[in-house]
Amino acid sequence: MTRQELINLIRLKQSFLCIGLDTDLGKIPRHLTSLEDPIFEFNKAIIDATIDLAVAYKPNLAFYECYGVKGWESLTRTIDYINTTYPGQAFTIADAKRGDIGNTSQQYARAMFDKPSSGLEFDAVTVAPYMGEDSVKPFLSYPSKWIIVLALTSNKGAEDFQFFKSLDTRLFEQVLIKSKSWGSEENMMYVVGATKAEMLADIRKIVPDHFLLVPGVGAQGGSLQEVVKYGMTKDCGLLVNSSRNIIYASNGTDFAIKAREEAGRMQKEMHYLISAI
Amino acid sequence: MTRQELINLIRLKQSFLCIGLDTDLGKIPRHLTSLEDPIFEFNKAIIDATIDLAVAYKPNLAFYECYGVKGWESLTRTIDYINTTYPGQAFTIADAKRGDIGNTSQQYARAMFDKPSSGLEFDAVTVAPYMGEDSVKPFLSYPSKWIIVLALTSNKGAEDFQFFKSLDTRLFEQVLIKSKSWGSEENMMYVVGATKAEMLADIRKIVPDHFLLVPGVGAQGGSLQEVVKYGMTKDCGLLVNSSRNIIYASNGTDFAIKAREEAGRMQKEMHYLISAI
Repeated sequence: MTRQELINLIRLKQSFLCIGLDTDLGKIPRHLTSLEDPIFEFNKAIIDATIDLAVAYKPNLAFYECYGVKGWESLTRTIDYINTTYPGQAFTIADAKRGDIGNTSQQYARAMFDKPSSGLEFDAVTVAPYMGEDSVKPFLSYPSKWIIVLALTSNKGAEDFQFFKSLDTRLFEQVLIKSKSWGSEENMMYVVGATKAEMLADIRKIVPDHFLLVPGVGAQGGSLQEVVKYGMTKDCGLLVNSSRNIIYASNGTDFAIKAREEAGRMQKEMHYLISAI
Repeated sequence: MTRQELINLIRLKQSFLCIGLDTDLGKIPRHLTSLEDPIFEFNKAIIDATIDLAVAYKPNLAFYECYGVKGWESLTRTIDYINTTYPGQAFTIADAKRGDIGNTSQQYARAMFDKPSSGLEFDAVTVAPYMGEDSVKPFLSYPSKWIIVLALTSNKGAEDFQFFKSLDTRLFEQVLIKSKSWGSEENMMYVVGATKAEMLADIRKIVPDHFLLVPGVGAQGGSLQEVVKYGMTKDCGLLVNSSRNIIYASNGTDFAIKAREEAGRMQKEMHYLISAI
């Protein structure tokens, strides 16, 4: 999906909501667990219930890998379902935080983008910056595919290294400064946690036009208004993720209805905030 | 596998060789490609041919993920083969470079260590430090399992951030300083590229007893003698990885024989170097 297509989706749906499909067998409704592929059935119901409210879906791969081969089957079915049932209607993100030496990152790129090889075709993948340019660039050779580089994450451990400071520059700023030349606003985004919303002003000085993927609203305590205040651009420039608050809004047979209600509540707020730009 | 068991293996085999199972369908002998699971058959032959010469095997997960579900099946079969055919005879490393918020890293730990959940049981997993303590600690709750934290990698991109400097401390040193308190020498190792062997002296000042996993000998240009000179401890303290030089020593029907010859050449050199400690 191109940047313009993503912006069009945001305008059409009046939403910049990304739903995190962090699907945990221990948390989904019990009536699903006797089905052959409960994770896929859960995801399918969530997607069907929210496709007009969300512009992106983001499965975190850990929640699939923990079930091994069976988990990868559920993941593959989920992405295939979005791509075939709702083509062009949602931006898909592999939240994988991959990164390795160049030769190896090429294989990760195939895993996420090259359907004939892996059976999977996402629009974007999250990548970890620690190993530098050659660990990230192989992902950029796929037209209309994106990388989303970890800059400032939403967890407590973000303090450990991301704020490591050289003269006036903190590591997360150095990541932004260096990496932004590796691609462009057309194929790179950054992860910036909502729990550090006030940092978005500093970040926008370095990457004024890049889209930011913002986790941490909801369960982790971040505020949507703060994120918009400091991070929104004329093209919106934000994808705000919510996972647990939406997908586990209920664990009864009404889980999809309740997920839709919660997604709708966020979309309404987003519609109001977008209309100001 | 405990640290003492690993040291015993190194003494028994007079080797600290780790073989990287970066198995690429485009590079394995053509006579294997018509089999049902060529990647597993290739790995099995390499393992059978080298089990007395190598102390560790390290599949890089990218080379399996790029084939999607089928790749995960090959990976699962490979680790299961080692664990059941050669129990206690090899240390297995998931070269996965994972790391995410705590709740999510817990799922990655299940993926790598919890066989009833994922079908996989490695001894160790490589992790990326960028997201800090809570991204790493969940892996440490499994007894006798290890994390191997990226410190200084063997690729060109290592220069981009790992040398980012605050006063006298470079980021890779800060990673060592901070992270070594998260676990102990009994459950943590570090990745240090052989292409930066002279840095090993600086690294040994911070982590004198931790095992180091050293990639980059061979295809990437690192020297075994240099690594030993600066990195070896009284317990050896090194696992030196070689991938392409060994597993692709030949692409004919003699590939396993040639892999054994190449592994044997390294083991002889290692035997000589170990005997000095």
